[in-house]
Amino acid sequence: MSVKTAAVIGGGVIGGGWAARFLLSGWNVRVYDPAPDTERKVHEVLTNARESLPKLADVKMPTEGALSFVSDIKTAVTDAQWIQESVPERIETKHKVFAEIQQHALETAVLGSSTSGYMPTVLQENATRPGQILVTHPFNPVYLLPLVEVVAGKETDSSIVDAACEILTGVGMKPLKVRKEIDAHIADRLLEAVWREGLWLIKDGIATTEELDDAIRYGFGLRWGQMGLFETYRVAGGEAGMAHFMAQFGPCLEWPWTKLMDVPELTDELVDKIASQSDEQSGAYSIRELERIRDNNLVAMMRGLKETNWGAGKLLNEHDQRMKNNT
Amino acid sequence: MSVKTAAVIGGGVIGGGWAARFLLSGWNVRVYDPAPDTERKVHEVLTNARESLPKLADVKMPTEGALSFVSDIKTAVTDAQWIQESVPERIETKHKVFAEIQQHALETAVLGSSTSGYMPTVLQENATRPGQILVTHPFNPVYLLPLVEVVAGKETDSSIVDAACEILTGVGMKPLKVRKEIDAHIADRLLEAVWREGLWLIKDGIATTEELDDAIRYGFGLRWGQMGLFETYRVAGGEAGMAHFMAQFGPCLEWPWTKLMDVPELTDELVDKIASQSDEQSGAYSIRELERIRDNNLVAMMRGLKETNWGAGKLLNEHDQRMKNNT
Repeated sequence: MSVKTAAVIGGGVIGGGWAARFLLSGWNVRVYDPAPDTERKVHEVLTNARESLPKLADVKMPTEGALSFVSDIKTAVTDAQWIQESVPERIETKHKVFAEIQQHALETAVLGSSTSGYMPTVLQENATRPGQILVTHPFNPVYLLPLVEVVAGKETDSSIVDAACEILTGVGMKPLKVRKEIDAHIADRLLEAVWREGLWLIKDGIATTEELDDAIRYGFGLRWGQMGLFETYRVAGGEAGMAHFMAQFGPCLEWPWTKLMDVPELTDELVDKIASQSDEQSGAYSIRELERIRDNNLVAMMRGLKETNWGAGKLLNEHDQRMKNNT
Repeated sequence: MSVKTAAVIGGGVIGGGWAARFLLSGWNVRVYDPAPDTERKVHEVLTNARESLPKLADVKMPTEGALSFVSDIKTAVTDAQWIQESVPERIETKHKVFAEIQQHALETAVLGSSTSGYMPTVLQENATRPGQILVTHPFNPVYLLPLVEVVAGKETDSSIVDAACEILTGVGMKPLKVRKEIDAHIADRLLEAVWREGLWLIKDGIATTEELDDAIRYGFGLRWGQMGLFETYRVAGGEAGMAHFMAQFGPCLEWPWTKLMDVPELTDELVDKIASQSDEQSGAYSIRELERIRDNNLVAMMRGLKETNWGAGKLLNEHDQRMKNNT
C-alpha cells in the first residue's frame, strides 16, 4: 500500500493529537499552524503518543509516517487524502480556512472539522465544494480515545461520509455517525450538562472540584468507561430490565433535583474558586505529568477491556486483527 | 478481632450488594425483606460478588461472614454495628422503617440510608435517635464500585459520621463526605443531568440508546473512570491549565446548546422508544449475563488502575496494604 497523507490545519492539543494518530498509523502528516511554537507543541503531543498508543497494540505498529511542518495551507493540503481543521472555535476563522482548503484539496479528500460546537451545514455556508465538508469531532487525547463523532451537513456527499468512516476505522478509531446535525453534536451536550451542574455545586459550596471528580471516578465513571448510560441502567433495573428502571426512575425527573433550568453566571469569583480548587487538587503535578498519568491510566483501562473483549477493548482487538491481515 | 454484624433492611439490587460487600469483608450479615424471593435475589448478587470482588485483591480476603435471613427488623438490627436501609424510595416507608430500627438498634450503631434522593434531615423527621441517622449512598454494583456518598443531616452526630467513614474504608469503599445536604446529593445530580439530555436526544431522533452509550464509552467515559471532569479539563487546557480552559469553555455556557432548560415529558411513546432501542442494543444478553460482563469489565479496568496506582486502583492498593497489616 502506498503511504497516504493527512493535512492537519491547526496544531494545538487537538491538531497535535490528530497528527500523532495518523503518523503512528503509518500516514505522512503535514501540519500547518502559524503559531511560532507549533513544532514544539506537536512534538510534545507526539512524544506522549509514542509512549502510549503502541502499548494498546498486540501486533506490530505500522512504520511511522513522515512529519512535516509547512508554511501555508496550500502546501499542507495538496494531494492529501484527509484534511483536518482544528483551528479556534470562531466561525469566521473556520470559514476562511475552509475556503483556502477547498482551493487546493483533492476532489476526493475528506475535509473534516474538529469543531465541538458548529453544525456541518454552518461550516458549508458559501463553500465551493460543500460535499467534501463534514464534522469529524474527536476527543482528547486523540491518539488514545477512539471516539470520533462523524456528522454530515445538508450538502455532504454520502461517499465522503463513507470514506471518512473507513479511514477513521483504519487508524483505530470509532466513527460514530450522528443521525441529525445539532449544535455540539452528542457527547459535548452530555458533557455540558454535567459541567453546568458541577458549576452550581461548586458555586453553592456543596462540593469542590476534587470532590466532584471523586464522585465521578470512584462511581459511575467506571461504569461509563465500558457500558455507557443506558446499558448500565438496563442492568440496574435488575431482572425486570429497562422498563422497570424507567418506571422507577422516570417520576424522579419531575423532582426539582437540579439547577439545570438555569445557567450559572461565570463570574470572576466563580472562575477563581474553580481555578484555586483545581490547583489544590492537581497542582502537585505539572500538566505534562498529568498527561502521562492520564495516558497510562487510559492504556491500563483499555488493556483491561481488551482482555474482556468489550467496548474500547473489543475495538482494539478488531484493529489488531485488521493490522495482522494487512501485513 | 471479633466478627461484626451488619443489618441490611431491604434486599433488592442495592441491599443485596451491601450484604455481599460486608459478607466478603468478613462481617456477619442479617437481611430483612418481606418479599418472598429475597433469599434467591440476594444469593444471585452474592454469586456475582464472590466471582468478582476477590479478583480485585492481591492479598487473602477475610473469611466470609455468616449470612442469615430474618423475619423482622428487630432481629436484624439487634447488636448490629451497621444498619443499612435500602427500601423503596418513598419517604413514608423510610420513616416507618427507621422508626422501628431506632427502637432496637445499639446506641453506637450507624443507621445509614441508601436513598438516592432524600436529604438526611428529611429522614431524621420525628426520629427518636436522629444523631445516628445519615445518608450512605452507594453505587451499583455495590460490591465492586468504591464510592459511597456520606451525608450528615442537621442532627447527625459527628462521631457517627466518623464511624461510618472508618467502617466504609474498612470494607474497601471510598466514603465521600458531602459538605452540605442537598436533594440527590452529588453524583445523581450529575447523572440526572446527563439522563435528561439523553432523553431529549432520543426523543428528537438525534441518537439511539446504543449511540449515546457509544458516545460515552469510547470517549469521555474512559477519561472519567480515572480522573473525573475537572482534572480532565485541567489537562485539556494544555500548558495554560485550568484558567485557559475556563476562558475557552466558559463562553460556550451561554450558547443555546442543550435542552436542559426543560424537562422532557416521559410519555408512553418515549418510554417504548427507549425500551425497544435498549432491547435492540442489549437484548442478545440476559440481565445476568450483562451483570457478569459489567463486573468483568469493572474488575479489568480497576486492575489496570492498580498497576498505575491511581484513583480506584490506588484505593485498592491501599486496602490491600491495610488487610495485610491486619493479619
